[in-house]
Amino acid sequence: MDLEVVTIGTELLLGFTVDTNSAVLGRDLSAIGARIVRRTTVADDPEAIGQAVSQALSRASIVITTGGLGPTRDDVSKRVVADLFGFPLRFDEAIWQDLIARFRRLGRDPAPANRVQAEVPEGATVIPNRWGTAPALWFEGPPGIVIMLPGVPNEMRNLVRHEVVPRLSTRNQAALVVRSRMLRTTSIPESSLAQRIGDLDEKLTPLTLAYLPGLHGVDLRLTAWNLPPEEADRLLDQAAGRLRELLGDFIYGEGETDLAAILLDALRQRGLRLALAESCTGGLVGARVTEIAGSSDVFAGGVVCYDNAVKVALLGVEPGLIEAHGAVSEPVAVAMARGADARLSASAAIGLTGIAGPGGGSEDKPVGTVCFGWVVNDRIEQARYVFLGNRHEVRQRAAQYALHRLWRMV
Amino acid sequence: MDLEVVTIGTELLLGFTVDTNSAVLGRDLSAIGARIVRRTTVADDPEAIGQAVSQALSRASIVITTGGLGPTRDDVSKRVVADLFGFPLRFDEAIWQDLIARFRRLGRDPAPANRVQAEVPEGATVIPNRWGTAPALWFEGPPGIVIMLPGVPNEMRNLVRHEVVPRLSTRNQAALVVRSRMLRTTSIPESSLAQRIGDLDEKLTPLTLAYLPGLHGVDLRLTAWNLPPEEADRLLDQAAGRLRELLGDFIYGEGETDLAAILLDALRQRGLRLALAESCTGGLVGARVTEIAGSSDVFAGGVVCYDNAVKVALLGVEPGLIEAHGAVSEPVAVAMARGADARLSASAAIGLTGIAGPGGGSEDKPVGTVCFGWVVNDRIEQARYVFLGNRHEVRQRAAQYALHRLWRMV
Repeated sequence: MDLEVVTIGTELLLGFTVDTNSAVLGRDLSAIGARIVRRTTVADDPEAIGQAVSQALSRASIVITTGGLGPTRDDVSKRVVADLFGFPLRFDEAIWQDLIARFRRLGRDPAPANRVQAEVPEGATVIPNRWGTAPALWFEGPPGIVIMLPGVPNEMRNLVRHEVVPRLSTRNQAALVVRSRMLRTTSIPESSLAQRIGDLDEKLTPLTLAYLPGLHGVDLRLTAWNLPPEEADRLLDQAAGRLRELLGDFIYGEGETDLAAILLDALRQRGLRLALAESCTGGLVGARVTEIAGSSDVFAGGVVCYDNAVKVALLGVEPGLIEAHGAVSEPVAVAMARGADARLSASAAIGLTGIAGPGGGSEDKPVGTVCFGWVVNDRIEQARYVFLGNRHEVRQRAAQYALHRLWRMV
Repeated sequence: MDLEVVTIGTELLLGFTVDTNSAVLGRDLSAIGARIVRRTTVADDPEAIGQAVSQALSRASIVITTGGLGPTRDDVSKRVVADLFGFPLRFDEAIWQDLIARFRRLGRDPAPANRVQAEVPEGATVIPNRWGTAPALWFEGPPGIVIMLPGVPNEMRNLVRHEVVPRLSTRNQAALVVRSRMLRTTSIPESSLAQRIGDLDEKLTPLTLAYLPGLHGVDLRLTAWNLPPEEADRLLDQAAGRLRELLGDFIYGEGETDLAAILLDALRQRGLRLALAESCTGGLVGARVTEIAGSSDVFAGGVVCYDNAVKVALLGVEPGLIEAHGAVSEPVAVAMARGADARLSASAAIGLTGIAGPGGGSEDKPVGTVCFGWVVNDRIEQARYVFLGNRHEVRQRAAQYALHRLWRMV
């Protein structure tokens, strides 16, 4: 099933808005075997919209549009597409009452301009939008099928998942799908990954393997191209299993997962309580840990010891240790972790101290140098690592490395 | 000057990649009066690329493409466009030597596949890419003008700003431009902003004013549409000045600025030294402050006191105070700030304690409740606020509010 997408919005062309909707459409539709062959973006202009939709219908039997369904004067696309199908617009009292009720729940009244949102093309299927005000519209007739979705990202995403995908799936049962799985690795550079994976890469055919380096490590994307759904899933499972065998705990999870959540689960299972001592990351590790709901039963807290005096006063790091080795050194990182562990009555701790840049580097300790100390009960580990990138990247990579090593320890 | 954009990449259609390049192109080109009238996205497929570029050239005299200039087998677009212009490809030894040198600097050798990157169309202008390996190409001939840019976001952005915009500007001197300015507000809801701005909104014509609510406050975007550049800039300055008069220090900056950087500058000017005591934000405020290079001369550090015992042990908060008022209360927030101020030898401090959710709320203190204490020398302020949104949003909004109020104090 080939289809085209037309995204409508002057703001998209001007670059005021980044088009994230198209990525959602691409992933969700290719997973059910609906192939997007072209995407066109036009302004909120009736002529441009009409042309783009007609041209798309001349090439593909199904066209999905996003945007142009709100109440403002720019939103004209519903009328344009209704004209293409020869469907007259009529005012729908039930939709209008529903809109009024929705506004009242938010403590407001709809504006007169909102009335156009209750106008629907006679002959099109109106798909209620439980996540917002503008319903989706499904046109079917001689020119083909046009599915119109609102442009608000959350509304569009939910309508695609709960309304569009199920309807298209029933029409497309014999489809060959494109599906992918993402294995998340960290603490191992791309070249070492490639070495470990070796010639498995070629043996994965008909799947492909992509290396996607990012701030939190290298993600491995396995993709099954144009296969029956069951076979795609079976091959993806098999390949993911083989990669897990080769890469062990360099893989910390799959998909949208966050290492902080995985670490918290592991700490919880072992009855451990976490404390942090952060210098160069300045609270970033704590922020990641506490972003996870329910972290409070595992996370005691931490000390952000940006100033060396704070390392001494709040964590009990010996001033002599800092003098002897420098603030950025493994012994100081370990002393920070031990101090946090003791003073916050924890049983697991991380200490990080480093040079995030852009200034402060030296021959011996270049920008990007970060020293780590980890404590889990009586076990102590330490490391020193030079991370590449700018200040933001060094800090993110150091935080991820710190979380990963602790996860491997517990 | 009307132009079209063709973005090339199977990954874009599949939704593996979000197209951020198009937003950069839109903003930078409309600011010099080059209007993007349509954007088309196609797969890495010669036929689809050829069709899309030909169709675009039939409507607009200038077409910009992004993507499809790397070394992999999918990258075929250079050849397709060269064919449209009838330009033969030739191997360019100088570009090849340059590529080899670039790889060597990274400690690697180019692969044989990289040789295609040194093939350039005879007759096209080759624009060196100082930010990466694939040069940009500028075709000019009977079909029109095609400017091909690599798809790597950083390389594309730099080539647009430093190479494409200057060349197009000289061709487009009488142009009417679309330019905008973004005023960043925080700590004031959209409805109160609208009330303060009142009927100024209509008096801004021919400019428009858009309210863009986000995690860090409501941004106000002023846009001048299709005006001569000098007049656009003059009207934007004037309107920004009037908004600043109406909104005072609810406006903390313009454009891509970060409130943390503005606060650090203000603290530095007044010789103040900052300490933090974070509970519900768990290090987020510290992470934002230390993301700014040079923060170490102003920021002493902080305590993340997720656990109440840490509030007592490390910040000297009286256990009786927590019992009497609860951990989420203004008195405890103030005691946290004073404790951080004293124990970290600072002269300015923030204390935050709240319920980020999704659990932990009560009738009296619903999810989203955050209590704040601020200390600047001997001055103390406190506040309690209920933020809307999920855990992530509550934390981000609370951090921004904490930074903003301290900035207003100093």
